[in-house]
Amino acid sequence: MDKSSKIVRDPIHGNIKLKDHIVKLLESPEVQRLANIKQLGFAHLVFPGAHHTRLEHSLGAYQIASQISKSLNLNEYQKDVVSCAALLHDIGHGPFSHTLESLLLEKFGVDHVDLTEELIQGDYGIFESGEKEFIQSQSVHKILSNNDIDREEIINIIRGKTSNMLYLGQILNSTIDVDQLDYLIRDAYYTGVAYGMIDIERLLQTLVIHEDTLTIKRKGVGVVENILMARGLMYSSVYFHKTARIAELMFSKAIELIPDLEPFEFFRMTDAEIVSSLKKMGVFQHEIVTRLKYRILFKQAYSASISDLDEQALDKIRDLENAAYRRQKEQELEETFNIPHGHLIIDIPRPELLVSEPRLHKTDIFVVDRDEVKTLDDFTPIAEAIRSRITPDWIVMIITDEKYRDAVSKKAETLLFG
Amino acid sequence: MDKSSKIVRDPIHGNIKLKDHIVKLLESPEVQRLANIKQLGFAHLVFPGAHHTRLEHSLGAYQIASQISKSLNLNEYQKDVVSCAALLHDIGHGPFSHTLESLLLEKFGVDHVDLTEELIQGDYGIFESGEKEFIQSQSVHKILSNNDIDREEIINIIRGKTSNMLYLGQILNSTIDVDQLDYLIRDAYYTGVAYGMIDIERLLQTLVIHEDTLTIKRKGVGVVENILMARGLMYSSVYFHKTARIAELMFSKAIELIPDLEPFEFFRMTDAEIVSSLKKMGVFQHEIVTRLKYRILFKQAYSASISDLDEQALDKIRDLENAAYRRQKEQELEETFNIPHGHLIIDIPRPELLVSEPRLHKTDIFVVDRDEVKTLDDFTPIAEAIRSRITPDWIVMIITDEKYRDAVSKKAETLLFG
Amino acid sequence: MDKSSKIVRDPIHGNIKLKDHIVKLLESPEVQRLANIKQLGFAHLVFPGAHHTRLEHSLGAYQIASQISKSLNLNEYQKDVVSCAALLHDIGHGPFSHTLESLLLEKFGVDHVDLTEELIQGDYGIFESGEKEFIQSQSVHKILSNNDIDREEIINIIRGKTSNMLYLGQILNSTIDVDQLDYLIRDAYYTGVAYGMIDIERLLQTLVIHEDTLTIKRKGVGVVENILMARGLMYSSVYFHKTARIAELMFSKAIELIPDLEPFEFFRMTDAEIVSSLKKMGVFQHEIVTRLKYRILFKQAYSASISDLDEQALDKIRDLENAAYRRQKEQELEETFNIPHGHLIIDIPRPELLVSEPRLHKTDIFVVDRDEVKTLDDFTPIAEAIRSRITPDWIVMIITDEKYRDAVSKKAETLLFG
Amino acid sequence: MDKSSKIVRDPIHGNIKLKDHIVKLLESPEVQRLANIKQLGFAHLVFPGAHHTRLEHSLGAYQIASQISKSLNLNEYQKDVVSCAALLHDIGHGPFSHTLESLLLEKFGVDHVDLTEELIQGDYGIFESGEKEFIQSQSVHKILSNNDIDREEIINIIRGKTSNMLYLGQILNSTIDVDQLDYLIRDAYYTGVAYGMIDIERLLQTLVIHEDTLTIKRKGVGVVENILMARGLMYSSVYFHKTARIAELMFSKAIELIPDLEPFEFFRMTDAEIVSSLKKMGVFQHEIVTRLKYRILFKQAYSASISDLDEQALDKIRDLENAAYRRQKEQELEETFNIPHGHLIIDIPRPELLVSEPRLHKTDIFVVDRDEVKTLDDFTPIAEAIRSRITPDWIVMIITDEKYRDAVSKKAETLLFG
Repeated sequence: MDKSSKIVRDPIHGNIKLKDHIVKLLESPEVQRLANIKQLGFAHLVFPGAHHTRLEHSLGAYQIASQISKSLNLNEYQKDVVSCAALLHDIGHGPFSHTLESLLLEKFGVDHVDLTEELIQGDYGIFESGEKEFIQSQSVHKILSNNDIDREEIINIIRGKTSNMLYLGQILNSTIDVDQLDYLIRDAYYTGVAYGMIDIERLLQTLVIHEDTLTIKRKGVGVVENILMARGLMYSSVYFHKTARIAELMFSKAIELIPDLEPFEFFRMTDAEIVSSLKKMGVFQHEIVTRLKYRILFKQAYSASISDLDEQALDKIRDLENAAYRRQKEQELEETFNIPHGHLIIDIPRPELLVSEPRLHKTDIFVVDRDEVKTLDDFTPIAEAIRSRITPDWIVMIITDEKYRDAVSKKAETLLFG
Repeated sequence: MDKSSKIVRDPIHGNIKLKDHIVKLLESPEVQRLANIKQLGFAHLVFPGAHHTRLEHSLGAYQIASQISKSLNLNEYQKDVVSCAALLHDIGHGPFSHTLESLLLEKFGVDHVDLTEELIQGDYGIFESGEKEFIQSQSVHKILSNNDIDREEIINIIRGKTSNMLYLGQILNSTIDVDQLDYLIRDAYYTGVAYGMIDIERLLQTLVIHEDTLTIKRKGVGVVENILMARGLMYSSVYFHKTARIAELMFSKAIELIPDLEPFEFFRMTDAEIVSSLKKMGVFQHEIVTRLKYRILFKQAYSASISDLDEQALDKIRDLENAAYRRQKEQELEETFNIPHGHLIIDIPRPELLVSEPRLHKTDIFVVDRDEVKTLDDFTPIAEAIRSRITPDWIVMIITDEKYRDAVSKKAETLLFG
Repeated sequence: MDKSSKIVRDPIHGNIKLKDHIVKLLESPEVQRLANIKQLGFAHLVFPGAHHTRLEHSLGAYQIASQISKSLNLNEYQKDVVSCAALLHDIGHGPFSHTLESLLLEKFGVDHVDLTEELIQGDYGIFESGEKEFIQSQSVHKILSNNDIDREEIINIIRGKTSNMLYLGQILNSTIDVDQLDYLIRDAYYTGVAYGMIDIERLLQTLVIHEDTLTIKRKGVGVVENILMARGLMYSSVYFHKTARIAELMFSKAIELIPDLEPFEFFRMTDAEIVSSLKKMGVFQHEIVTRLKYRILFKQAYSASISDLDEQALDKIRDLENAAYRRQKEQELEETFNIPHGHLIIDIPRPELLVSEPRLHKTDIFVVDRDEVKTLDDFTPIAEAIRSRITPDWIVMIITDEKYRDAVSKKAETLLFG
Repeated sequence: MDKSSKIVRDPIHGNIKLKDHIVKLLESPEVQRLANIKQLGFAHLVFPGAHHTRLEHSLGAYQIASQISKSLNLNEYQKDVVSCAALLHDIGHGPFSHTLESLLLEKFGVDHVDLTEELIQGDYGIFESGEKEFIQSQSVHKILSNNDIDREEIINIIRGKTSNMLYLGQILNSTIDVDQLDYLIRDAYYTGVAYGMIDIERLLQTLVIHEDTLTIKRKGVGVVENILMARGLMYSSVYFHKTARIAELMFSKAIELIPDLEPFEFFRMTDAEIVSSLKKMGVFQHEIVTRLKYRILFKQAYSASISDLDEQALDKIRDLENAAYRRQKEQELEETFNIPHGHLIIDIPRPELLVSEPRLHKTDIFVVDRDEVKTLDDFTPIAEAIRSRITPDWIVMIITDEKYRDAVSKKAETLLFG
């Protein structure tokens, strides 16, 4: 990021030009911290190129938002709030992106969007102890208020809850929002998977505002179908990759088993900092971060897909969705096989993920055809097909240390369902 | 890296297929540690996509080495040692790649190649305290000896010192070695700079072994010219980028000023670990790692290129090449301007870099034309032109905290040369 | 095509290596003629980059067939017939590819596959009058018989009718055949449309022969979904593009109206030759080829999609499927508006195209999952959705000279249905 | 080219947006005719993908010119003339681009730029006999005068002879002109050669007007070096490819040997039309076009590079530069070997091409560094090296029919120089 020229080079979007106050936001500690948080958590253990961070992604979302703002002919106020919202939408993310999200929700009832909101309002800080005195750059909320940029509206856009100008919120929250557009292309680029190609230029040509709503013209149906398909394929080949999931489960377990857990501090940390902290919190935690460093992962001892199981087994799965019960079951199994605590994990992907990932449901873009507003389903059966495409491949999985795998593997089904 | 299928997906080379013992080497702690060391040190502070690591690069070098071995029709023994050498050539690298290299050399007289050799021989270990007990995977030297792969020859290849089969050493040490071929393409891909495109397929077609030496056919001259040019352009636009250099200088200064420095421990660390260690070693160290985390860099207060200076000034520059004298001069300047210790740094890029980077001198590939061996210079003036292309842009630079910049800027020339 | 090195450079597949008898086939007049026949007919009038020919496509199909043969571990006999079949599958094509196909079928009851068969058998020749004496290269049927390559089997493969080794025929006739794989990628590349990206490498990994049938492994479902989607999107954005269709209709009309039509001669011509011949066959023909040369196209005066029409209108459309009746209706309309003969054309896209293009029905690939054979529909709703995706956009269209457009436009609906 | 939306899809530049009068120019017969003239003449006989035409190239040059105009902040008048000049700069090209250029010059003393000028002024027409009555679109000179666009200035820009605003002419005539920028990238794309990658975006950032002259900033030196290198490599690997040259020589010979040659008519023809005309002009002409259609080329019987020859031989080469003498020599050789007339051709690449191609000399871009104007050579030795890089590989070549090759090969040296 060469500040003088205010141009940043991005492998995806080429040269990204930044106006004055955007440069300031980019230099803020909240945004720079994102350069230390991997976009895809532990996916680099499967796709070795996937070390990209939330910072590049935020810049990319900013760039697409600017392009959309321009092609929709938004006014200066709208352009400002939309592009700031795109740049800032991820500042509340904890280390390793989504990895700790469910813990955050379970313990404190908040998610990364709530933290983003607090950071924008200046109600929460990201500094680790002792850092503040070395920081010369301004915080996000200061920059925004100094430049008279409407913080409430930015938060509304990030939450997709703009009251009168619906389209502003949809630029960041819809079937074709800039968040997804950037991450699909970017994650495909850094993993080397061939599926994320999206024709942004063509999409831009087909977007229109119709009755305050972001819609596409008839000729844009193909581009949107392509985005939906890219999304579906990236989920099955990258986002729900089993090996990356195993690493995440190991890491979450290490956090969960911290004695006297007070995890809120963790969320302001970077990837490197949480790893460094964990190391000192117990033997199990030290083991896990060492294993992740050297990629010595737990192995799958058992897994089943929805079509493998009968109704009775599916009932048991539903019980296991309860975290407390699942942890109790893990301990039972550990005792049965004489496995040290923390070394056996049962994974029940969140039920709302089972029919399809929540975002996959969002095919809520409307189509304007000869002045009539229609749904995407009026033009193509693809949207519906993507919605009902089942991911991930497993409904239950047990992982454990390699040396216990065979033993667990033989009895898993009986012990779980029998 | 999906172990069962032994195929790794790389954004540069596509699917990389790995044989059994290569899979074992890839899973060794020495190689996995490279996933925690950024290929380009602090370049991501300038090119936000540049978070790629030595691991991907090592896999890429392995892949090209395998392709060359195949196209040269090497025998199984040769294929094995060459491909292992390519995969292992960087395992001795310290954190942030080249950043600490000069310190290592100054204090202990060794470089990363020496450490690579010791690791291959089993004379040195990479584990941090307490890690070893959690590691189930075999070390590199064990895997090599279990598979009867000649460790001496691997080291010779990495050092470019194969005695009778010169070409084996040249595959890893020459104008067109696999190390450079991979990093030029890869660094271009992750930075988004447009210069690193190289036609590997075409290069493969033009390589031949002639009298035990790796040479190219007449029709390969264009490909090699292209490689030389890509190298020259990557050096000026990426490897010698001033802002990334400033971050490196800050980081090196933080290491240099550790009281009672015993830095050897540092070299086995990862990027994250050295940052975490530094934080606790003093206020200045804490400041520097905090500034790097949030990208609050020192600024250039003065810089001069070779054509800006007269003979007398150049003499003073030569004096400043001496590290002890340079540090003394830094302190003098700090006292003059009342700058806290460590906050002013004089950079004299290594003299051997001034006419051109050492590797740029290596245009040592020979050309076979109708059975005669000729040099590249017989066919093209490009090689010579690249050799004499001066890089980097500055011969001396002073950097300091933003608040002291103007004061230093005004008097720098007088104080240095006057 | 540098013959000495037997390597051809292709923008899609990189270097394509050719064995001896393949080089001979490539040099045969039948295959070289394809360099004079545009792959996409008149699509370059819409996508100016789309001048690529059947020759590159045939080479590409050959290359993918060779890769599949290798990854399926076929024996030498099988490799030979499959790769020859891929290289030769299009040699029977007439000028502008599919443009004249329906005329060929209507008048003579043959299609380009029948002509391909006759050429392979040596029962038909491609030479224009006077050419033969200048030709030194061997004909396809000679090369095949000199090299003892089984011509019957090649024809069976091209027709998808291999009796015992079903998979051989499927390599050229199935959901994932090499013909489509190449043209989807290639047509996307030359038109600049973003949809044709297909991960061939990944597809190769997932193909297996199961009980004599070409099938994919479970993990290949995503790749096949991607191929289906690419196909669907290429049809709607390129293959059924209205403007290219208008050019085709004009050209077909020029052929149709040749007095004393004896069109069989046309099929051996190249694009340039048929244009040159037409010019001398009447004023209307001269007009049409001049207009196509300078891109002065007829305009759409009326069009309707299936949802625009009521049952009664649809009945009339069905009547218009009959070519004789349609031509009579065209003349009626011409007389009504005082339009010179040939200047008004009614297009009724072939009924079998209405629910979806015939090839879109082919989602006939099977999936092997833990030794069971299943259909693609067992794993994904995408295949079914693609099958039912309606293309093209119009069920009836009237085109005419710009100057008559408005007049026709106003009364078209009444005159057609009323 | 979808006229209604005024956007054209180009594989190189993506969506190209066209203003009203540019759409009209694009639809003019002079510009549409370029869709029938291959950009690289017969290069598709070597690179099968290279069927792209002057039309796409003209659109690409237009697009880059528009981008440069915008980044240089030109006024509306300047933008208009520059972008029109870029779109129109090739309309005077004859069939197969450069193939007939030397004949045109020899017989009539004009080149394609002169014809371009006459077309813009309305002093020359492109229509073949009988075409005019079918044409509804306006001619270029009409469109320009109707829109009050300065035709003189457009011609000056195309000729690089703008009097006061030098930079306007340089946009189309300089080291970094839009003509080259587009064709280097485009020819690389369609041939599949890896060398033409140019970072247009970065170039745009570094261009400035300094004292009425187009110059680059210091930081743009790397981009220009890259352009120079791309140019050098494209010349040796594509533009001077020997096999494509052989096809050109055959075609030129067919034209040369037309009895009662009145070739001026040829220059308005398209590729297809000149081939069709030649066929009827004699047996030799029929043979040549048939051979080119089926790629049955003459073979090289002899060739020498400059380093192969002594001073005496070089003198004889210089004599052969004279066309009349060379033709006499060809006939002598034909008689010696009993070869039918036209079947032996001596190629002496134009002397000005020998040290390097004329455009390669143009490294005339200036560099502004801290307000001083310097030459490119002040910053890099690459420019000089490229200038002195010798191309093509041969200084003399004899080609003939395959059956005479061996006989000619044995005695060629003696007969030429002995």
